[in-house]
Amino acid sequence: MAPTVEGGDAALLPEFPRGPLDAYRARASFSWKELALFTEGEDMLRFKKTIFSALENDPLFARSPGADLSLDKYRELNFLRCKRIFEYDFLSVEDMFKSPLKVPALIQCLGMYDSSLAAKYLLHTLVFGSAVYSSGSERHLTYIQKIFSMEIFGCFALTELSHGSNTKAIRTTAHYDPATKEFIIHSPDFEAAKFWVGNMGKTATHAVVFAKLHVPGDQCHGLHPFIVQIRDPKTLLPMPGVMVGDMGKKLGQNGLDNGFAMFHKVRVPRQSLLNRMGDVTPEGTYVSPFKDVRQRFGVSLGGLSSGRVSILSLAVVNLKLAIAIALRFSATRRQFGPTQEEEIAVLEYPMQQCRLLPYLAAAYALDHFSKSLFLDLVELQRGHASGDRSARQAELGREIHALASAGKPLASWTAQQGIQECREACGGHGYLAMNRLGVLRDDNDPNCTYEGDNNVLLQQTSNYLLGLLAHRVRDGACFRSPLKSVDFLDAYPSILDQKFEVSSVADCLDSAVALAAYKWLVCYLLRETYQKLNQEKRSGSSDFDARNNCQVSHGRPLALAFLELTVVQRFHEHVHQPCVPPSLRAVLGRLSALYALWSLSRHAALLYRAERRRGCPGRRDRSS
Amino acid sequence: MAPTVEGGDAALLPEFPRGPLDAYRARASFSWKELALFTEGEDMLRFKKTIFSALENDPLFARSPGADLSLDKYRELNFLRCKRIFEYDFLSVEDMFKSPLKVPALIQCLGMYDSSLAAKYLLHTLVFGSAVYSSGSERHLTYIQKIFSMEIFGCFALTELSHGSNTKAIRTTAHYDPATKEFIIHSPDFEAAKFWVGNMGKTATHAVVFAKLHVPGDQCHGLHPFIVQIRDPKTLLPMPGVMVGDMGKKLGQNGLDNGFAMFHKVRVPRQSLLNRMGDVTPEGTYVSPFKDVRQRFGVSLGGLSSGRVSILSLAVVNLKLAIAIALRFSATRRQFGPTQEEEIAVLEYPMQQCRLLPYLAAAYALDHFSKSLFLDLVELQRGHASGDRSARQAELGREIHALASAGKPLASWTAQQGIQECREACGGHGYLAMNRLGVLRDDNDPNCTYEGDNNVLLQQTSNYLLGLLAHRVRDGACFRSPLKSVDFLDAYPSILDQKFEVSSVADCLDSAVALAAYKWLVCYLLRETYQKLNQEKRSGSSDFDARNNCQVSHGRPLALAFLELTVVQRFHEHVHQPCVPPSLRAVLGRLSALYALWSLSRHAALLYRAERRRGCPGRRDRSS
Repeated sequence: MAPTVEGGDAALLPEFPRGPLDAYRARASFSWKELALFTEGEDMLRFKKTIFSALENDPLFARSPGADLSLDKYRELNFLRCKRIFEYDFLSVEDMFKSPLKVPALIQCLGMYDSSLAAKYLLHTLVFGSAVYSSGSERHLTYIQKIFSMEIFGCFALTELSHGSNTKAIRTTAHYDPATKEFIIHSPDFEAAKFWVGNMGKTATHAVVFAKLHVPGDQCHGLHPFIVQIRDPKTLLPMPGVMVGDMGKKLGQNGLDNGFAMFHKVRVPRQSLLNRMGDVTPEGTYVSPFKDVRQRFGVSLGGLSSGRVSILSLAVVNLKLAIAIALRFSATRRQFGPTQEEEIAVLEYPMQQCRLLPYLAAAYALDHFSKSLFLDLVELQRGHASGDRSARQAELGREIHALASAGKPLASWTAQQGIQECREACGGHGYLAMNRLGVLRDDNDPNCTYEGDNNVLLQQTSNYLLGLLAHRVRDGACFRSPLKSVDFLDAYPSILDQKFEVSSVADCLDSAVALAAYKWLVCYLLRETYQKLNQEKRSGSSDFDARNNCQVSHGRPLALAFLELTVVQRFHEHVHQPCVPPSLRAVLGRLSALYALWSLSRHAALLYRAERRRGCPGRRDRSS
Repeated sequence: MAPTVEGGDAALLPEFPRGPLDAYRARASFSWKELALFTEGEDMLRFKKTIFSALENDPLFARSPGADLSLDKYRELNFLRCKRIFEYDFLSVEDMFKSPLKVPALIQCLGMYDSSLAAKYLLHTLVFGSAVYSSGSERHLTYIQKIFSMEIFGCFALTELSHGSNTKAIRTTAHYDPATKEFIIHSPDFEAAKFWVGNMGKTATHAVVFAKLHVPGDQCHGLHPFIVQIRDPKTLLPMPGVMVGDMGKKLGQNGLDNGFAMFHKVRVPRQSLLNRMGDVTPEGTYVSPFKDVRQRFGVSLGGLSSGRVSILSLAVVNLKLAIAIALRFSATRRQFGPTQEEEIAVLEYPMQQCRLLPYLAAAYALDHFSKSLFLDLVELQRGHASGDRSARQAELGREIHALASAGKPLASWTAQQGIQECREACGGHGYLAMNRLGVLRDDNDPNCTYEGDNNVLLQQTSNYLLGLLAHRVRDGACFRSPLKSVDFLDAYPSILDQKFEVSSVADCLDSAVALAAYKWLVCYLLRETYQKLNQEKRSGSSDFDARNNCQVSHGRPLALAFLELTVVQRFHEHVHQPCVPPSLRAVLGRLSALYALWSLSRHAALLYRAERRRGCPGRRDRSS
């Protein structure tokens, strides 16, 4: 039974302890409690408070900031803490269905405490558990209960030493042997060893292993997931034929045991195949509801969107923590002043404000985006679970894939740069381990890499947009998507004719202004990228080369600008809803405008160049 | 007696071991040995080889990459290694005078091995030792010998808990007591504790302590340096009245013991005052060759330039290491390809090239700048040592101060961003501790903060330039400086009239083109900053507010652009010397152009905006 928080608002949102921040807090133009209630809602605040109170009161979660913990000790502690989280049972399955946002909220709370704990829990439940649930069938339901009781502990083994991004080149094999009705899982060589697998290093008993499926006398049916026991749950000793070990120290997240594994002709029962997208009959015939290998592959990796959305929300947590630390420090640290006698808080310096406040705004905008994208994902998964095979469901999957593929890069990079800026903005004190900025930076860093390298992922998003434009040019199709994130593109010729007409700085303080500029920018980048790509192809480049030659200067900024626009759009709509309390409208509007203008300003050179190509003001663009 | 390397060129520059990099190496358009000889010179290569060979053959320096070393063990090892470096006696005092570049070369070699070691050695010799030497007098020479024999071990205690950047607000006091002919060193409270002092945490026996000097019945004479024994060299126990301790774990450089100290009425002999800029007679009268407190203060902190120049060169080392690791990895790691069968090295992707190659060019350009600035510093110090009080010497000091104050920020930020890019460009493998990119990032990070926060320092450089322009506007003075870095500004009105006339991309591949654009940019920024500053003052802002309000949008880019221009200028001249071997001209020219264009491109928005303000092409600038 999960603990709960009793009492009214005072218990839920107690006053801050008195201290040097009082002076700034007293100057706020709004009530922070009202903002917290608007941002999270009372039910969510209560849920988070329950989790934090439990951790605060449990000695196993005692913090020792800046402690010099050995790798082994840290991993042991992290495992025990993960186990304890299951025992607390903060979130029932019914609760998950009723309030799906509590799932990322739980992960975020764990991430606030320690990224390694969030990752360990997430990998076992949402990555390993979800893979078993969504790729398996009835016969695998027995695993689900064992997962939630931590009777077994899992990991997700896709990446190999020599192949991460290029999943199609993965080389572990699974040959079916009809004589014994078993699959033989095998790693041909060390370069095909499963690598970087979180939880595999010390603690996982089971792995979802991706391997190329072969049946006798038939061609390869491509990558399929198998559930493979890799360790004895009692002794944690490796199973016969499995060579499994720990990757050693990493730049961060050292509470998480990343590992490698090689399989030497390991035999597993036929039922180990997670058979939703393809199965093998006892006699050895391959059967699949999907005709096309590519389509099958797409479905089997579809689950990666959920990983990316989780990472996005963990990156936001890191950014939130860092910016809170840096702003609080800046409000109390005094250095220099108008006279030698009077020193002022460093937060008063325009330089410090310019360095930090945009990241505060980014934390709010990205936090809202991460929640809204998670709800979109829930919609997709519900359609998937109910067997929806409509065109809309497929389109929704593609749209979420495109949003998550650029959302993870945007959030992880914003957090990474923000944390570094916070570290530097806190001067020497920011370099002390106990002040946590280093841990945040190191723990956030892999968010830029895993579940898809940021730069590689951005190509998914630009390809999605280019595909839509090609479809329009070729077939006259409209830009339409279930979440409407691309619908504005339908008007791209007229948007490209628009000019920026705002004359005063004050008028720019509405995010609608930046939003209009962003729409123009995305239309412009999309058209330019499309033209550049076609030009590359006309001049004889292969598809592969043409895309690579366009990515740096065109595809990458297109994907980022599109995603920034989506984040700005969603936050703009959110803070301009009629239900926003009047007392919060000003501050939320400012946060929205600040994030939008700051993000847009990074494209300033592009905007100027585009304007220049149009010619002097008054002339029309000749290239459109 | 220092070890030396025997044998000819083959021993000095042996072939690389054969391996997967051979294919790329075979494609080089130049001989790497020739490039190494041109960049370093044979004597320097030999010197570095001597150091590396000694470390390679000494078990005390055995590496355990990615090891999980405890804080205490790491500090102990680092101290022992530092001691061993003194025993090796790589660099005699005569050698230092004959080949001053061997000083930073030694520090760089130690930095290549481990930043903590370089910092520990540097702080003891060049920071503590130089402070005693240059701020003291004959009576302190006895310390110098003990420093080089490591009979005493030193640290430099300026920063306090509450004051780092604002050194004028430092509050430790030194009251002279004529009765006992002693100074009483005292920390009024914990906020005035000396803080962050490298070597102080565990190992220093002596500190140069900066304190406000008071004599009886007289006003305060400002900050002066005192040499104070803080620990017993035999037991390392604190001296009476000294509370000294370790700061604990940091984000990086954990081999270095940063510490804090409070002094409770600690009595030191009158001779402890490092008395070059001011002294107290036995009776208690303050005497100084400098009339003005400000001037005295300037001289006493003049030594900080040398710290900044050292940091600059250590940042370059970190960048060099990171880019070498990332490029080698990129040349061997294969992922995706034109067909499913054929994968290509990730270095072949334009994206990877755009991410990494500019940092390779930056490493070369900044390395050259760091050496040339060190030689300028040597000139300054020789003038100082020979008692040169000419106007040129003073001007040289100011110019080097301006160059070092922007050079440290430029180099430390370039390295920090470059290392992060390298980390990400190596994907998951870059996140493994043994691959060293994390250590490099963490160890480089404080370079952005210590010896002056980067953003605070940049103000020194913009103030220097603004002062020169004010002098010209007010008094008609010419822009002239001993190192000629500002001389071009004399022609600023005509430079501002120039237009960018290059028509082809090929023509831009000469760094002279970017150089001309940079000159225009610096003139433009200087004029704009000057106008903005005056406008702020006219509208009633105090000097303090006016400068702060100009810094983000004007002063900061001015300082950075000026320094980038200086780096580009020096590297351009270096690679276009007649003595450059013909076979190296192409590659060096490309490095120079790449660094220049890449740096300049970050100011693209500013260039477009400036052009726009001039009006459409053909029209003249009305505001000039």
